[in-house]
Amino acid sequence: MASPTAMKADTALQEFPAERLFETRKQSLRLTENLSDADQTVQSMDDASPAKWHLAHTTWFFEAFILRDHAPGYQPYSDDFFYLFNSYYENEGERHPRPFRGMITRPSASEVRDYRAHVDEALEKLVATADEGLTEKLAPLVELGINHEQQHQELLLTDILHLFAQNPLYPSYSVTEPKTAPHEATGDTWSSFDGGIRRVGHDGAGFFYDNEGPAHDALIRPFRLADRLVTNRDWLEFMADGAYSIATLWLSDGWASVNREGWRAPLYWREREDGWHQMSLYGLRPIDPDAPVCHVSYYEAEAFARWAGKRLPTETEWEVATEGLSPRGNTVGTGALRALPAGHPLGGERQMFGDLWEWTASAYSPYPGFRPAEGAVGEYNGKFMISQMVLRGGSCATPEGHIRATYRNFFYPHHRWQFMGLRLAEDA
Amino acid sequence: MASPTAMKADTALQEFPAERLFETRKQSLRLTENLSDADQTVQSMDDASPAKWHLAHTTWFFEAFILRDHAPGYQPYSDDFFYLFNSYYENEGERHPRPFRGMITRPSASEVRDYRAHVDEALEKLVATADEGLTEKLAPLVELGINHEQQHQELLLTDILHLFAQNPLYPSYSVTEPKTAPHEATGDTWSSFDGGIRRVGHDGAGFFYDNEGPAHDALIRPFRLADRLVTNRDWLEFMADGAYSIATLWLSDGWASVNREGWRAPLYWREREDGWHQMSLYGLRPIDPDAPVCHVSYYEAEAFARWAGKRLPTETEWEVATEGLSPRGNTVGTGALRALPAGHPLGGERQMFGDLWEWTASAYSPYPGFRPAEGAVGEYNGKFMISQMVLRGGSCATPEGHIRATYRNFFYPHHRWQFMGLRLAEDA
Amino acid sequence: MASPTAMKADTALQEFPAERLFETRKQSLRLTENLSDADQTVQSMDDASPAKWHLAHTTWFFEAFILRDHAPGYQPYSDDFFYLFNSYYENEGERHPRPFRGMITRPSASEVRDYRAHVDEALEKLVATADEGLTEKLAPLVELGINHEQQHQELLLTDILHLFAQNPLYPSYSVTEPKTAPHEATGDTWSSFDGGIRRVGHDGAGFFYDNEGPAHDALIRPFRLADRLVTNRDWLEFMADGAYSIATLWLSDGWASVNREGWRAPLYWREREDGWHQMSLYGLRPIDPDAPVCHVSYYEAEAFARWAGKRLPTETEWEVATEGLSPRGNTVGTGALRALPAGHPLGGERQMFGDLWEWTASAYSPYPGFRPAEGAVGEYNGKFMISQMVLRGGSCATPEGHIRATYRNFFYPHHRWQFMGLRLAEDA
Amino acid sequence: MASPTAMKADTALQEFPAERLFETRKQSLRLTENLSDADQTVQSMDDASPAKWHLAHTTWFFEAFILRDHAPGYQPYSDDFFYLFNSYYENEGERHPRPFRGMITRPSASEVRDYRAHVDEALEKLVATADEGLTEKLAPLVELGINHEQQHQELLLTDILHLFAQNPLYPSYSVTEPKTAPHEATGDTWSSFDGGIRRVGHDGAGFFYDNEGPAHDALIRPFRLADRLVTNRDWLEFMADGAYSIATLWLSDGWASVNREGWRAPLYWREREDGWHQMSLYGLRPIDPDAPVCHVSYYEAEAFARWAGKRLPTETEWEVATEGLSPRGNTVGTGALRALPAGHPLGGERQMFGDLWEWTASAYSPYPGFRPAEGAVGEYNGKFMISQMVLRGGSCATPEGHIRATYRNFFYPHHRWQFMGLRLAEDA
Repeated sequence: MASPTAMKADTALQEFPAERLFETRKQSLRLTENLSDADQTVQSMDDASPAKWHLAHTTWFFEAFILRDHAPGYQPYSDDFFYLFNSYYENEGERHPRPFRGMITRPSASEVRDYRAHVDEALEKLVATADEGLTEKLAPLVELGINHEQQHQELLLTDILHLFAQNPLYPSYSVTEPKTAPHEATGDTWSSFDGGIRRVGHDGAGFFYDNEGPAHDALIRPFRLADRLVTNRDWLEFMADGAYSIATLWLSDGWASVNREGWRAPLYWREREDGWHQMSLYGLRPIDPDAPVCHVSYYEAEAFARWAGKRLPTETEWEVATEGLSPRGNTVGTGALRALPAGHPLGGERQMFGDLWEWTASAYSPYPGFRPAEGAVGEYNGKFMISQMVLRGGSCATPEGHIRATYRNFFYPHHRWQFMGLRLAEDA
Repeated sequence: MASPTAMKADTALQEFPAERLFETRKQSLRLTENLSDADQTVQSMDDASPAKWHLAHTTWFFEAFILRDHAPGYQPYSDDFFYLFNSYYENEGERHPRPFRGMITRPSASEVRDYRAHVDEALEKLVATADEGLTEKLAPLVELGINHEQQHQELLLTDILHLFAQNPLYPSYSVTEPKTAPHEATGDTWSSFDGGIRRVGHDGAGFFYDNEGPAHDALIRPFRLADRLVTNRDWLEFMADGAYSIATLWLSDGWASVNREGWRAPLYWREREDGWHQMSLYGLRPIDPDAPVCHVSYYEAEAFARWAGKRLPTETEWEVATEGLSPRGNTVGTGALRALPAGHPLGGERQMFGDLWEWTASAYSPYPGFRPAEGAVGEYNGKFMISQMVLRGGSCATPEGHIRATYRNFFYPHHRWQFMGLRLAEDA
Repeated sequence: MASPTAMKADTALQEFPAERLFETRKQSLRLTENLSDADQTVQSMDDASPAKWHLAHTTWFFEAFILRDHAPGYQPYSDDFFYLFNSYYENEGERHPRPFRGMITRPSASEVRDYRAHVDEALEKLVATADEGLTEKLAPLVELGINHEQQHQELLLTDILHLFAQNPLYPSYSVTEPKTAPHEATGDTWSSFDGGIRRVGHDGAGFFYDNEGPAHDALIRPFRLADRLVTNRDWLEFMADGAYSIATLWLSDGWASVNREGWRAPLYWREREDGWHQMSLYGLRPIDPDAPVCHVSYYEAEAFARWAGKRLPTETEWEVATEGLSPRGNTVGTGALRALPAGHPLGGERQMFGDLWEWTASAYSPYPGFRPAEGAVGEYNGKFMISQMVLRGGSCATPEGHIRATYRNFFYPHHRWQFMGLRLAEDA
Repeated sequence: MASPTAMKADTALQEFPAERLFETRKQSLRLTENLSDADQTVQSMDDASPAKWHLAHTTWFFEAFILRDHAPGYQPYSDDFFYLFNSYYENEGERHPRPFRGMITRPSASEVRDYRAHVDEALEKLVATADEGLTEKLAPLVELGINHEQQHQELLLTDILHLFAQNPLYPSYSVTEPKTAPHEATGDTWSSFDGGIRRVGHDGAGFFYDNEGPAHDALIRPFRLADRLVTNRDWLEFMADGAYSIATLWLSDGWASVNREGWRAPLYWREREDGWHQMSLYGLRPIDPDAPVCHVSYYEAEAFARWAGKRLPTETEWEVATEGLSPRGNTVGTGALRALPAGHPLGGERQMFGDLWEWTASAYSPYPGFRPAEGAVGEYNGKFMISQMVLRGGSCATPEGHIRATYRNFFYPHHRWQFMGLRLAEDA
């Protein structure tokens, strides 16, 4: 996913996903319901985008890849918007430079909603009038548009959290937190997995991104995997043991980051007289020792694993370990909007899906035989396959139904602003 | 003025400026009437501040320097606001780092208006109930608060212009431009002035900033001064003659800026198929050759003067040349909101006041015998007396009544975002 | 290898390598014979080190890891040198910051030679007097010291080339170039390899670095590999076809590098009236179209492969393709000091060893089961296993006898100053 | 002087300065006698130049401005050198970028000496054979060349000190320090000066730089000036009183420098267990409390003056205060190569000349009526007249005979690497 977005190459779809399309479109609006025009406009760092931009760009996507080519007589809402809300598709011409996305105070959030309404209306009309041939042609593009928008829904949450964390008043994104009784993390156990040749990746039915395929055989060795994510309690112990001040625990680049950035705790942690707090979608709150540690970089995850005498799993191991599990867990659908302690009723089995994206030890590379799709749609995944690491499993900010076992998310090893955590592994 | 604001040292005031106080407070709100929450929130560069911040900071000023100390039982509106909206007064404790002013999406523009109303109400109450002794004590502080707020009114306009200039849609700040017939610049003549010892600076009656005094004798030599500002027509000729590509026309630091920043025209100029345009408070508009050239740095002004075989005036010369003139011209009161051609009915005599701040050849240094005021109020001018150049005369963005002959504005030689131009001088 | 150096973990050695030790020590001196004190002192970029530093650091290595612990009564040559010439061993205490290595004009090159002589003498004495137990203990450390010094010999050449390339006079490192008749590149053919489970990596007899092990099974698919490196002629065609100006040919990070750095040809290329030249150890010379293209980044290599409709080989494929070959080719021993056209009598079979390090498609990650050695010696490889790519095969600057099929070199994808090139691969 | 060099405009010369020319040329060689090839090659920061470059550039100056135009049949030593050793004369064509001066390991120091010998020989021949007309024409150019070379002699010393200060071994530039008995600073007294109109600047007989003229009347007010420079003892007291941690003592830009650069003492100060030391041309030595404080920026000087309740003198005041003094003091001729306590027998009266350049409160601006000379020679002073401050009086590194009362040196307010100090002033 990354700031970049990932796209599927091709797929065979059972039926036209009209309902999911409009439900997804509505969900984006729901996510910004409590945000002001200003909240939706400001860009808090180069890696992040304004909420308004996410709303507009996902709309541009339907204009650029569906309406423009397939809706007879479609009039683009605005040439200016077309330029402003392209993200990084070199094939689609000039676009507004990324670090200046936050300068666009106009169009306003309200005008962007009008833009969305215009496009939704055109989509509705197109869907209603398309013959069978066109429907078949549109189905994969619409599916792609849905998934693309879902990815931006997750980024919208991570980016708004980053913005609010810059505000010394620590505003809360979410007004009402679901009442969940305090929960003690369970599951401090490990599972064992056999070695051998295993099939991984995706090329079957249903939607998937091009980077998940081709499905292929992989050779693995016997391994063991923790049944839960590393917790804040674990992390506090790591810190108490000198984590951020012992060079030999770190990758060389990681140690450089620690010193250059002054890291001494995960992102958004603030030490107060009454202990450590972390900025969240509910504002600044005391650390819950039972919850999984969140907003750590790959460097930190890797250092923790070394300190613990373990290692991170490879993405293959992680995928193999999901066999037999359905991709359910604490994603946006639970309404929690934060990672919950292992064993929580809202969480998934062995905490494999939801809660937090899990750093793996695998560099983000093409699978054997991978070929990007032709044209603009092919720019999405392949061109990011360098210097990033794979994360698996989805998070509490991932839209309902958007995660699966083969899903490959990817970020740079210094990134911390996504809902990221880690799970330990070891050789069997 | 600068991004910093300047403060007066002491003054003898005829009467308590209650009416001007509340009129000034209202004027700030008028200036932001057409701005959205988002427009007022974004910070487009480190040198600029959000409009909302200007509205809040000028309000903080009255809280910090008047209400807190003199209004019995006054309750500060919010401790958070007190921290957020301090600017750079080291004496007043910790404050929010300047480059992050644009992250503050909350409080909203509307909440800041509530803050303003709260403080205005308290000020009204204080004014209404103060006895004579207190009134006398408050008068200079209120006068200072008025002038401080006026300075921020001008910055608000220059900062919003900078923000809108980053938007490829070039939005207009002002909806209605006053209809003024096209005007041909007149006054391509020069005036001569005698040399000798002249009194400059201010320490008489009425308000003035501490950096305008002490009044003192200065020795000048006979000189001549152009009766108008350099025009866009002049500048286009300069450009056609190779201005931005001839190293020997430039100060060494200026030439480095030209190359590092890629300058090839004044700030906000855009070349289109039908010629040069400039971003303005009315959006992007074709260059008016008769209007004074605006948004040039000191480096550019100095290079132009060298190219023209002339020089810039010193601030002493400029001040001497205003003798007999009243400080009237095209400031905000005319409603033009842009620099007008010389000789325009709305402009001042010899274009000395209003239209554009004029770069002088004088470095911003303390006058002989200058001592900053004690305490926080003394931080305003003295600490900026290094590496900046003096500008004189006020601009089309300067509030009505805010300019005078002794007024010393100051900016760094690379700055261009204020309403800045130049006038030529030569030895007699 | 990288600016970092790689170290072996453990090994079983047949005999004590005394002769190779002193031969290696002499070879380092030979490489600097034609360099002045100044040539040996200047550091031309953060990634490079001064020649003098290489000479001293490799000497420090023997002091720190052998003499200090094992030579009875050994007196360190100088405490200052011990601090100055540590590289990055966090376990070994404070050290001089890397970017300031070029500030050390004293000790002089001649004093560093005295330091070397002192240490060589102590090593000779130690070797002569060690009993069998000590000899057995020392053998792997000495072997490590030899290999460490050989790595720095290669870096010394790449770093001096970088330095000389900054000099507009383009000085020549090597006075006498071996007369080799112009040679037309041959071997524009491809070899095919079967898929299956193959054993790769090293854990047998003889020296190897810890990152080459453990030996393990890898699953590969049938593939084809070009029998020669990509040539300058190929590259000129790529350039003529718009290489450096077509965004869609590039990885996203690569395209950013192209634009930020202004790349429009490989490193050290200069366009003159009579065509392209490249700085070399013999000064600036016209491009030989038959020679392999040298000094390209991973980004460039990957873009070329995409343009050519092929891909880069994985490191596993590369290693599998060396089966049956002895690790011989155009390394330093041939005296060529430049990459030669494919098929040249001095080159290796299928150009697999020597000439140029070959970028592979593999990120530099630990092999399954990899554990770094304990203590300072363990800092060499593991801590660099992030964000770098593996290169294979050695180069014309690699010391004689230093290369082997399992050898993993690694650099960041933007690096270009090593003797780096590429070979194409494709799925069978 | 500055990294820039200053040049005179015109002058009436009594006689042809042949002897001084060749003495000056020899003196440059003497200054580098103890420096190795490497010492002379490395550039330790952008503001500094290698010693070898100073030797070559001053030689280039004679080639470019005298030999090329006036010596019949003169053959330039090398086209390459002509390019390499131009400094910043835009009129003289392309030149080697300043930050890369330290990459030029070849030509060697010895080759640069050959270059010097070649040019000296040609100069000798030219002088010997010139007729009266030519002699008259050459005299001012030669005088300029002498003064230019003297300026570079001073820079050579400040630059080599900066280089050696980067070396943790703190090498000594000067082998033999003249034995001077410890001296207690005297002269903690003040002198008073009348106000009125005074003649300052230079346009009389003898050599002077164009920026020293035209001589002109200046109006000053009565003032008092300390009879000695501020001492290390004074500075330690300032530091003990919180100097580097009290924001309100500083100019705003100065405070930013303190924090950005981590200043907590003058440049080259190192705190050791036995107290503060300072790097000097004799290596690292304990602070002498009686010696003047050296290597402080304008920001520090200005903050000190504020702390002391005084101010810095203007350059006019400083110049007026030298009336009746001959320009003698502790310059290079004394052999001390360091600033000596006030009242030292080798020092000048009231410490006005020599010991340290004194920061004044005056920005470096053109004098009234100043016009730069035509052509390349005119590039030397005028183009630096922005953002720098004037220093007066010469230093222990200034060549014998090079200083005078009207001499205007100039550096940026953050500069510290010259031999710079301060003297206090106050209104009478």
